[in-house]
Amino acid sequence: MGQPLVQTIPGGVTAPRGFRAAGVACGIKRRGTGASAPLDFALLVADRPVPAAAVFTTNKAVAAPVVVSKAHLAASGGMAQAVAVNSGCANACTGAAGMTVANGMAAAAARAVSCRPDQVLIASTGVIGVPLDLAKVEAGIASAAQALGRDGGADAMRAIMTTDPFPKEAAATATGPAGTVTVGGMCKGSGMIEPRMATMLGFLTTDAAVAPDVLARALRRVVDETFNAITVDGECSTNDCVFALASGASGVSITSDDDPLLIEPMRQVAGHLAREIVRGGEGATKLVAIRVTGARSLDDARLAARTIANSPLVKTAIHGGDPNWGRLIAAAGRSGADFDLDRASVTIGAVRLFESGVPHDERADEAATVLAAKTIDIAVDLGTGGAHEATMWTCDFSAEYVKINAEYRT
Amino acid sequence: MGQPLVQTIPGGVTAPRGFRAAGVACGIKRRGTGASAPLDFALLVADRPVPAAAVFTTNKAVAAPVVVSKAHLAASGGMAQAVAVNSGCANACTGAAGMTVANGMAAAAARAVSCRPDQVLIASTGVIGVPLDLAKVEAGIASAAQALGRDGGADAMRAIMTTDPFPKEAAATATGPAGTVTVGGMCKGSGMIEPRMATMLGFLTTDAAVAPDVLARALRRVVDETFNAITVDGECSTNDCVFALASGASGVSITSDDDPLLIEPMRQVAGHLAREIVRGGEGATKLVAIRVTGARSLDDARLAARTIANSPLVKTAIHGGDPNWGRLIAAAGRSGADFDLDRASVTIGAVRLFESGVPHDERADEAATVLAAKTIDIAVDLGTGGAHEATMWTCDFSAEYVKINAEYRT
Repeated sequence: MGQPLVQTIPGGVTAPRGFRAAGVACGIKRRGTGASAPLDFALLVADRPVPAAAVFTTNKAVAAPVVVSKAHLAASGGMAQAVAVNSGCANACTGAAGMTVANGMAAAAARAVSCRPDQVLIASTGVIGVPLDLAKVEAGIASAAQALGRDGGADAMRAIMTTDPFPKEAAATATGPAGTVTVGGMCKGSGMIEPRMATMLGFLTTDAAVAPDVLARALRRVVDETFNAITVDGECSTNDCVFALASGASGVSITSDDDPLLIEPMRQVAGHLAREIVRGGEGATKLVAIRVTGARSLDDARLAARTIANSPLVKTAIHGGDPNWGRLIAAAGRSGADFDLDRASVTIGAVRLFESGVPHDERADEAATVLAAKTIDIAVDLGTGGAHEATMWTCDFSAEYVKINAEYRT
Repeated sequence: MGQPLVQTIPGGVTAPRGFRAAGVACGIKRRGTGASAPLDFALLVADRPVPAAAVFTTNKAVAAPVVVSKAHLAASGGMAQAVAVNSGCANACTGAAGMTVANGMAAAAARAVSCRPDQVLIASTGVIGVPLDLAKVEAGIASAAQALGRDGGADAMRAIMTTDPFPKEAAATATGPAGTVTVGGMCKGSGMIEPRMATMLGFLTTDAAVAPDVLARALRRVVDETFNAITVDGECSTNDCVFALASGASGVSITSDDDPLLIEPMRQVAGHLAREIVRGGEGATKLVAIRVTGARSLDDARLAARTIANSPLVKTAIHGGDPNWGRLIAAAGRSGADFDLDRASVTIGAVRLFESGVPHDERADEAATVLAAKTIDIAVDLGTGGAHEATMWTCDFSAEYVKINAEYRT
């Protein structure tokens, strides 16, 4: 298929043709009034029911909107016309009443865009264990439906933010002999400054013409390398999900989940959004790529990368600018991945600090200089001689993280 | 067998008959001189080669002393006469040179107490990646061998400390129809104030008459419920190990690894020491028992308890005195253990905050009062109706932890 030309472009979920969006205030966040009320409801609508796919949280404590969206995708055969999202309330741990509200939210969106309820996907993000007010949701849907537009992506993005330090959207095109495919996306991340926040939502759109099953496989593949390859604190919320909708408006037909014309711009957009979540992580001051090589299997590579990326000792060392290769080795060693200490190595930036069982502490000052940057690459070779590798993105661990999360909720 | 009368008594590893110990300064810690030099070498000696058992770190980056002690236990058929321990240097990630020093350490101790080298167990704790000076070790062994005494337990304990905020020793007796068994112990914990510290060592002694294989099974059983049921930050070091030696001096013969006459005082001593490690954890201000019930299997119970006990969001909430049941539910849900949100419950102290899918936030202030204490019990029922349970001890997560671990090493 050849490698297409991939380019980032401005915009987010409405960058691909075939989608309109809006973001409105409907009082769920309960702060401010009138023009100062924060946006808290987003509606994303395709011109007709289109192929849709999703990846949901693996947490067994799932929120009502996750239960509903899963059921709808199954019932519709992977088709959706609308995505309705509120922020400010996660509708999680809300029992049977929460399910009623989630179903009501989908029904109201279906009425507003004239599709079947099972062609609506929903998501909620915000505080856990607090009831979601269906009347506010219905008001939000009504005013969002009025406001839908091709330029509504930025408002929609702002409407899904909770305490994110900055908005996150991205778009990219891929051009090959078959034509140009555009992918857009927005997400909200892990600024869990309010104590019981249910966290990560991602939304991707594309104008590719692609069947639901191909889109689902492409999304799974991309999410594994992007949203599933980041960590702020190793937590996984009750509401996490990533949705993808394909309008087909480009007329470019994609029949394989590894067609670069679709997968490359998806990677570009999802990868950017995922790294932005880490950069905006609670208390984070640095974005760190942990690349593990020399693993016997992909699972081993991911296990070691994830263990290192979540290690409090590694993350505090990075925060302090300490080129502490011992903590990297200890985390790799305890990860459960195959590991050979006598052949393992640790490299910070381009500085090899540990190799073949021998420390090179004479290069510690060079490595400390690398760690002073805002973006840092760390590589750990497990020493098994295996050819597998994986990269996780993480952030440093600061006293600010503790302060944010230890404050008694008001 | 009936339940014996178990009583705590003063003292540590030399509380049981048949053991002598010493703690001396040999310059490995390199701070202070003469009378002000910190103790850094401990020797624990039985009157003759006696049954011995050990549990070692599961970290695949193992330090040289772990490799040597494992080999010696195998070669001796589970017999040892001496345990030689230095603090201030972990002899980890030190390559072939480190192995030579570890073997030399065992050989010197064997000469000093007139046993075979494979009847010596060794351990090192301190900074990773720094060579251990064999000449200092040999000097330490020589002066410790001169200083051995029945009252040397306290000095030995002080000699294995690195940056522990307080010493940790314990002893207990169990009395039944067959007689009285004494168990003593000491350990060093997780005050990893110096950046690359290789951490947890535990030493148990008993005067029970018990074969090596029975002692090994009893130790494994006790460690699973004590040293393996604690966490400060989820890290597992290159040097962690727990040793047990049985002198037989009580004349009380133990033939089963679940004989309460041995296992109960071992539980008492190891449990106390393990909780002391948590209490002295870096930046810790609270000791928290996380009890998980309603699990389908013991593995599930332990998995959920461990996930909750290591959750940064749970640990920061406890630090802030926030009765944040949502974080406990989210951690249990993501643990991988079977979990039913609609039947799960969360109890802080005696305050039920979440039950049958319904929050009871009206009791949040009561729960906050419970969290203000120094010792806290938290119970999470997974809601599966299973009969299995497990308890993990953890501490809160403070900004002080970050400060301690982020400081660039000097």
